[in-house]
Amino acid sequence: MALVVIGGTAAGLSAAARARRLDPRLDIVVLEKGTVISLGACGLPYFVEGKIRDAKDLTVFTPERFRKERDVDVRTGARVISISHPKREVVLESGARVGYEKLVIATGARAENLGIAGTGQDHVFHLLSLDDAERMRAFLRERKPRRAVVIGAGYIGIEAADALRRNGLDVTILERSAHALLRPDDAFTVEVKKQLERHRVELRTGVDVKAIEPGSVAGVPCDMVVIGAGFKPNVALAADAGIELGRSGAIRTDDRMETNLRGVYAAGDCAEAMHLVSGRPTWIPLGTTANKAGRVAGANAAGARERFPGIVGTSIVSIFGMGFATTGFSAVEARAEGFTPVSARIEALSKPRYYQGTKTIVELVADRTTRRLVGGSVIGEDGAAGRIDVIATALHARMKVDDFEQLDLAYSPPFAPVWDPVLIAAQQLMKEL
Amino acid sequence: MALVVIGGTAAGLSAAARARRLDPRLDIVVLEKGTVISLGACGLPYFVEGKIRDAKDLTVFTPERFRKERDVDVRTGARVISISHPKREVVLESGARVGYEKLVIATGARAENLGIAGTGQDHVFHLLSLDDAERMRAFLRERKPRRAVVIGAGYIGIEAADALRRNGLDVTILERSAHALLRPDDAFTVEVKKQLERHRVELRTGVDVKAIEPGSVAGVPCDMVVIGAGFKPNVALAADAGIELGRSGAIRTDDRMETNLRGVYAAGDCAEAMHLVSGRPTWIPLGTTANKAGRVAGANAAGARERFPGIVGTSIVSIFGMGFATTGFSAVEARAEGFTPVSARIEALSKPRYYQGTKTIVELVADRTTRRLVGGSVIGEDGAAGRIDVIATALHARMKVDDFEQLDLAYSPPFAPVWDPVLIAAQQLMKEL
Repeated sequence: MALVVIGGTAAGLSAAARARRLDPRLDIVVLEKGTVISLGACGLPYFVEGKIRDAKDLTVFTPERFRKERDVDVRTGARVISISHPKREVVLESGARVGYEKLVIATGARAENLGIAGTGQDHVFHLLSLDDAERMRAFLRERKPRRAVVIGAGYIGIEAADALRRNGLDVTILERSAHALLRPDDAFTVEVKKQLERHRVELRTGVDVKAIEPGSVAGVPCDMVVIGAGFKPNVALAADAGIELGRSGAIRTDDRMETNLRGVYAAGDCAEAMHLVSGRPTWIPLGTTANKAGRVAGANAAGARERFPGIVGTSIVSIFGMGFATTGFSAVEARAEGFTPVSARIEALSKPRYYQGTKTIVELVADRTTRRLVGGSVIGEDGAAGRIDVIATALHARMKVDDFEQLDLAYSPPFAPVWDPVLIAAQQLMKEL
Repeated sequence: MALVVIGGTAAGLSAAARARRLDPRLDIVVLEKGTVISLGACGLPYFVEGKIRDAKDLTVFTPERFRKERDVDVRTGARVISISHPKREVVLESGARVGYEKLVIATGARAENLGIAGTGQDHVFHLLSLDDAERMRAFLRERKPRRAVVIGAGYIGIEAADALRRNGLDVTILERSAHALLRPDDAFTVEVKKQLERHRVELRTGVDVKAIEPGSVAGVPCDMVVIGAGFKPNVALAADAGIELGRSGAIRTDDRMETNLRGVYAAGDCAEAMHLVSGRPTWIPLGTTANKAGRVAGANAAGARERFPGIVGTSIVSIFGMGFATTGFSAVEARAEGFTPVSARIEALSKPRYYQGTKTIVELVADRTTRRLVGGSVIGEDGAAGRIDVIATALHARMKVDDFEQLDLAYSPPFAPVWDPVLIAAQQLMKEL
């Protein structure tokens, strides 16, 4: 019995490690096209910034260590070019074939071309791989660029802008949509803009970049460009093998992470996950989801029966030290999902004033009919992560605002005010319902 | 129609404010025995420490401001000595009588004598009132004590010890029980001791203080003593009026905060609240509960029909900057409550190492039969409040470990690791179940 895993990052290694734990005798092969495994891609912006000095800190395992500690046959430089499910084998670029009984596809995401001209230039970067980050560090060190344009105001774009600004560059972010951080929420985007502007980073929304000129993008002069847009699930291999994709374009799976091909699982940035608020599959590529879904894929591939119920779409990004966190749906998204959204947004202090509490903005969104919470956002310099996690937990529990308002949260002046901002938001929302 | 509220702190003022909001024409009288209202007693240790410099920062409202803004007849120095429910009136120490149609009792907690000899000495303090705190500040300034003994390792005792140590005193805490912070959990107490010792505060458990000598307590030399033990619900007034007490000794109410006397409500540190994990009334005097229960008492007194479902017993205390947080039951408490507890305790980093993550200890307790979470604790320098709040939210939702393990929590290196410590604890607990 052999398990083959395509992809040696979060989902793939979680699958391999979990399968090994459940079945000590299983033959497990991980095929990774690159040279490193277990890359924490979320750390790349901090490597560019210089906060992480050693690229080794970005990976959890060397291939050798994973091989040894987990007894898994990790092969790097092993690019799979096709999957033949009838033969139960994958074909490598080298021509080699590897047979499987169970297969986990964890091929991650890729950057789509976007039809932008001029992306091949030396001063144009993505920020998806360690190689991308190392090239960028070298460029910063050797070429000393002074002005950067970042295309895309998603997580990577904003984090890259933060990192470059901290390296002394003037930075302009160009975003095609009207919103930052993929959140259709005008007020949230206004706060993102304000925080960027406080640190002299400009965010221009509604700018559809067609070409990167040698010295400018969309009229903004620059000597460096980072493309932080156009991420797509990397599904060509799966699609060619007859694996069904969902409406999102990512691989469709059941709640055991199994695809339409029996014995073939998919997890991580290449796969969908169930959105527990809408009850519909969604594609939100994040490391947390990749780890959880990979673990379940590995367990089931090893013969267990485990479920990955799904996600609520929680995320947070630091913009110059301020947390911008979202979970579930904004009011606009909730309406599109068929809810009748009612929302309340409040400002309160994170802690008592005498304990240096800082401004915290909380929005909660509920469905008018069921009174169920369907989303929220938190912005603040301290406590934003904990607060969005409370809302996320409530979404998992399908909690009504009425119950959320009564939550018994921890209070003590060094940590929180007696009425936590999330409870103040709930009180406000109760008035609107 | 007149509403009389006895007590001008958290529960009483929340009740008055909420009643006013619901009924602009109601006559509302607040009777406060002291000179200030809206005292945030949780801030007293920080006033003693010197972090809060102005006593005014400890109160939210002056009586004048509350009178004016809320149109409430606030009377300070108005000590109620009896309630005559048949006559629907309260009698003040001055002899005056105040008639009511609805009554909210928010008389708070008091310090019991504990049978300790020598508590009347000048160098012996409680820390319940602004007066206590101001006397203590003056004593520190004028008498420059060098060694303090704190009796009781509950919240106030530990916070007082922290505050005195930061004022340069040598501090020893003497606790009668075997545990700190009212948590019957040996490992938790060990961590409290360690953190105190790191800052050269000694905690001795199992010490039953009988007398305070002029220069020592239980053989520990000192020139200052703080009593942080012996808190009891202040219920004499209510009991004399025929109001039923619960087994905890605090006033029993229904979920509308109404006592056995129709039209008489109780809330705050003098009253019980339902423990949502055990389903039994409990007495856990905290400001958060006082505010919520007071609000509901005020709403119902003003003719609304609102419920206060209850609490899960969440709290946090800072010990020299490290958060010690608990919610629900420890394993020992869970067993006493009739559960079959299974627990897991893990250590993990609060954030990735390269982002200065610090050691975080999480314990989760579940019931073996139902797999429901019944409690947890979190210890850490950063993120402890948010993490305990996630567990508290799960307790409100009666979540099983199986579901908790799958929570979609926010991840980004500046805030949290990809596997949050609470999820690692849940994974460990799943193995034990």
